[in-house]
Amino acid sequence: MERQDKGLAWMLQYENIAWYEDGVVSILDRRIYPIEVVKVECSTHREVAEAIRDMVTQSAGPYTAAAMGMALAAYECRGRSEAEQIEYLEAAAYTISHARPTTTWRMERITARCLDTARAALAAGKSDVSEVIRQCAIDMNDERYSGINTVGRYLAGLFPEHGTIMTQCFAETIVGMMLKEARLQGKDIRLFCPETRPYFQGSRLTASVAYDMGFDVTVITDNMPASVMKKEGVDLFTSAADVICCDGHVVNKVGTYQIAIAAKYHGIPYYVSGTPDQGHPTVDTVKIEMRDPDFVLQAMGTPTANQNVKGYYPAFDITPPELVTGVVTDQGVLKPDRLSEYKAVKAQFLV
Amino acid sequence: MERQDKGLAWMLQYENIAWYEDGVVSILDRRIYPIEVVKVECSTHREVAEAIRDMVTQSAGPYTAAAMGMALAAYECRGRSEAEQIEYLEAAAYTISHARPTTTWRMERITARCLDTARAALAAGKSDVSEVIRQCAIDMNDERYSGINTVGRYLAGLFPEHGTIMTQCFAETIVGMMLKEARLQGKDIRLFCPETRPYFQGSRLTASVAYDMGFDVTVITDNMPASVMKKEGVDLFTSAADVICCDGHVVNKVGTYQIAIAAKYHGIPYYVSGTPDQGHPTVDTVKIEMRDPDFVLQAMGTPTANQNVKGYYPAFDITPPELVTGVVTDQGVLKPDRLSEYKAVKAQFLV
Repeated sequence: MERQDKGLAWMLQYENIAWYEDGVVSILDRRIYPIEVVKVECSTHREVAEAIRDMVTQSAGPYTAAAMGMALAAYECRGRSEAEQIEYLEAAAYTISHARPTTTWRMERITARCLDTARAALAAGKSDVSEVIRQCAIDMNDERYSGINTVGRYLAGLFPEHGTIMTQCFAETIVGMMLKEARLQGKDIRLFCPETRPYFQGSRLTASVAYDMGFDVTVITDNMPASVMKKEGVDLFTSAADVICCDGHVVNKVGTYQIAIAAKYHGIPYYVSGTPDQGHPTVDTVKIEMRDPDFVLQAMGTPTANQNVKGYYPAFDITPPELVTGVVTDQGVLKPDRLSEYKAVKAQFLV
Repeated sequence: MERQDKGLAWMLQYENIAWYEDGVVSILDRRIYPIEVVKVECSTHREVAEAIRDMVTQSAGPYTAAAMGMALAAYECRGRSEAEQIEYLEAAAYTISHARPTTTWRMERITARCLDTARAALAAGKSDVSEVIRQCAIDMNDERYSGINTVGRYLAGLFPEHGTIMTQCFAETIVGMMLKEARLQGKDIRLFCPETRPYFQGSRLTASVAYDMGFDVTVITDNMPASVMKKEGVDLFTSAADVICCDGHVVNKVGTYQIAIAAKYHGIPYYVSGTPDQGHPTVDTVKIEMRDPDFVLQAMGTPTANQNVKGYYPAFDITPPELVTGVVTDQGVLKPDRLSEYKAVKAQFLV
């Protein structure tokens, strides 16, 4: 991979996340990027749903893929009657939204907007609305990126002029926006990225984005964060979140809790980026998804243990508000016990 | 691998660690065990030194390999004059002891005892002292195992009747002795073993030993210990140490510090096993060995990151005495600020 050093890293440009064109949706396979750059080509919206289910793209990638999948569904039913196309697209929206259980609510919002756009275009006499839906996908991405850019600006504003930032897992666009804004603000920072076993999102994805954008980036294994805090002087720890509960509990990739404990022990602030999830007023409604335990008994496909021992794979962990310094939203930085100040007016699928 | 369920796990029986016979030292290759069971065969003592340097065996494995290498050196110079054999063996002792910088002091004690044994046998008229040195290697192992068995007894005595123990990295014989003693004491325990990146000693070696001995063992990735402590209820965290400074600082495989912080946060005791190192009265003399940074950019030989990003690989970290509940020695369990009570009379290469 050549270093791109563009405004935003190559893999965060939505044409490279998922793209509909001429009856095909191409999705960057993040399961192996950047070791290999492979695009999974889907010729039906069902294949798009399968790709989402199979983790071909993750983090916010499925939001782009879902909308592009709706464009493909429109291509599949082009030329049929208006009523038939709407029926077909409604079924496609259901299939795509339910590709993964945890993201259904946000996916339904995205596919619903594609449906609204399609209905309007069909009513106006168009017989193939695939291009219209693609434009809708682009518009939604632009809106989302704009909101995330604001989050990135607030987050970068918390960085020291010269300093060291530790990340966790892969926060997709927020990483790119955070780094873009850090550069605009003249912040001279270096990054330490824990690799994030068992899936290596930190080493494969976050480190690649930071490298592509020209930053000084160092990958560490997941047993090193405390040691790096002690020896290298980390100024700030940051992560995104799968869910930020309204009571300030943060649900994010397993490991976040442990780094937050280490940060507290070293007096290092931990800022989480995202918006309070109105679906989770407290942490009591959060159920931690357990994934295939055997997945922790391999690394990049090679076994790492006697095949008879057990694995254990909670996808997420929960960091309590006492370990969270602040929640960086598009409306500013909030204390974890003051999330009721966030005005939940729009942009609910922001990050 | 079949489950062995013997008194001590298969890989901890010294015939399987390193063994001299008929002009060859066979060393179990722990770099790939238990994925494959391969023995590296050395036909000269120089090859034994190279195998030690190349990490074919590690933890306490080099102590067995060193003595068996001396037996091989005796075979190489058999039949020469007494003076020539002693000269040859002295050179071999130097080569083997200096295979790795951090273990030289203990290796010199081991090879010196082999030399003493050889001198006595040669003076008594033997022309091939290889078998005599092999018996010396067995005797030293037996002595060491006896001392470690005592440590294991004290350590297992700290376990609850029914409970959960977390380990770190691979503590070789102490793991086996701890488990053997836990069974003898009727303790019903399950183990969580962090995998210990980048080398996977926890998943490959510790979990294999526990499994072979018939225990309930679960491998987790290195970002999960805090989460497991919170969700699964860990009763005790334990590790061995590369160095226990006399002021109570513990130098051990990177990650120990982070788990000890998490243990403290959850109110879980951390017991380190080993003996105070008289060569390190305080932590000030400890220099953390930095290893090849690129090694953290792969897992089991497969790249995990863009080849242009940086890695970072401190072999060890330092856990301060405030995070250490007790030091489990062959003379009992000592508080980290009371290590002067340990009587450093013998068995300096105990663990």
